[in-house]
Amino acid sequence: MDPRRNIRLLLEYNGTRYRGWQRQADAATIQQTIEEALERLTGESVALIGSGRTDAGVHALGQVASFRLKSTIPLKAFHDGLNSMLPPDIAVLSATEAPPEFHARKSALHKTYEYRILKRRTRSPLYHHYAWWIALHLDLEALAAAAAFLPGEHDFTAFRASGSDNKNPVREVLAAAWREEPGGWLSFTITATGFLRGMVRSLVGTMVEVGKGKAQPDRLAELLASGARHLAGPTAPPQGLYLVEVYYEKMVGRASRPPSQKATLE
Amino acid sequence: MDPRRNIRLLLEYNGTRYRGWQRQADAATIQQTIEEALERLTGESVALIGSGRTDAGVHALGQVASFRLKSTIPLKAFHDGLNSMLPPDIAVLSATEAPPEFHARKSALHKTYEYRILKRRTRSPLYHHYAWWIALHLDLEALAAAAAFLPGEHDFTAFRASGSDNKNPVREVLAAAWREEPGGWLSFTITATGFLRGMVRSLVGTMVEVGKGKAQPDRLAELLASGARHLAGPTAPPQGLYLVEVYYEKMVGRASRPPSQKATLE
Repeated sequence: MDPRRNIRLLLEYNGTRYRGWQRQADAATIQQTIEEALERLTGESVALIGSGRTDAGVHALGQVASFRLKSTIPLKAFHDGLNSMLPPDIAVLSATEAPPEFHARKSALHKTYEYRILKRRTRSPLYHHYAWWIALHLDLEALAAAAAFLPGEHDFTAFRASGSDNKNPVREVLAAAWREEPGGWLSFTITATGFLRGMVRSLVGTMVEVGKGKAQPDRLAELLASGARHLAGPTAPPQGLYLVEVYYEKMVGRASRPPSQKATLE
Repeated sequence: MDPRRNIRLLLEYNGTRYRGWQRQADAATIQQTIEEALERLTGESVALIGSGRTDAGVHALGQVASFRLKSTIPLKAFHDGLNSMLPPDIAVLSATEAPPEFHARKSALHKTYEYRILKRRTRSPLYHHYAWWIALHLDLEALAAAAAFLPGEHDFTAFRASGSDNKNPVREVLAAAWREEPGGWLSFTITATGFLRGMVRSLVGTMVEVGKGKAQPDRLAELLASGARHLAGPTAPPQGLYLVEVYYEKMVGRASRPPSQKATLE
């Protein structure tokens, strides 16, 4: 067992300026930005493990990440101290001591993503980086009928991005629903045991074709059954996607987390 | 009477990148950006009149502007055509023919501004440019009690920014209220016959002092009665402020506006 402390961070970030979560040789990423701030703060070399990758332009309201550390720096440093070193588009919402066995990716039970669409005649200067703007009519009942095929265990091969490297394409969807809100907002929320690369954006892209009347709702069932790549509709753009929450066993990582911090998760 | 056409634009913009509405010699502004796009589109020199200025970093959901033009270009060009020439952080929501006497500033009867505060422990990467982040507790009842002094006609000298050049500091407030929403959001909406420069941000700054318990709600009444500059509390930062709507006589500028476009205002 690793004798070092195991620290768990709850993170919010605006993905607009970054080439996604995962460290890359030639572009700024969320993981690298936080690792560099942690190294300046602690003087130790830090490997930050995220619950999963998010693509370029994708946002997070509740990403979870963990790292090992020798330093006895108090937890407060990883909240207030780290926030003061991070750029304004990345923030630590909470920092807690996690049990030694906690691993942000491997311990995750399921995750919730939300995809936001802004339906109106003209593009929106305020939400340009925060939603997919669609001018055409979308049939909400058709969207709901398509989403109804999602709950349950499926092979999501038809909805994985090329380059997705996970061997097992089967995931269990626990909940999937569209919601309409005033002002032209439509949002799709999905909770599953895991997500293949590009899966939510591919599902949304196909459902939007259904909402436009270009396909029937059961197109989703057909694609799930086909198990064939590249049959799905266009992929929804990244800026509408938000990683909302990552769920773990109650015992894991919540043990030392004060209940009052729950509020920061919204 | 000017024989040229009088065109009225309904605009939304994200003020983050601009030094406010008003054309300036040494910085990008909203007015100048739209005037330049109009000149490229029409080949005519255009003077764009806004309903009023907005400061650097302030946003608009429903700014109104008008300009005179000889060209017989169809209205559609000022919606679709102009939008394709404008950067993504400025958009034309509608373009209509206005009566000859219409003047975006002088014809305005009253305006509504909204100020958005995000109350939570940690700053928000997603709303950094779109709200004032406040970590301390704010007493909503105290805020409401302070706002209750605003409706009616008052001399707003205490709440004008230095450099405000309007001679008459008297304005009538038609409505002013705080509203709480889920997720830590607090917003202040105010409708008045006009606003002095910096007035909303100065009112919000003083009310937030009241909300923090540093002053009593009737501090607002005292300041209004004093008529003295620079007694008010700190000024709220610009990124929380939105020009929401400008109201005109029904006959003016709505004559040719299809009712279906109302939806774009939200």
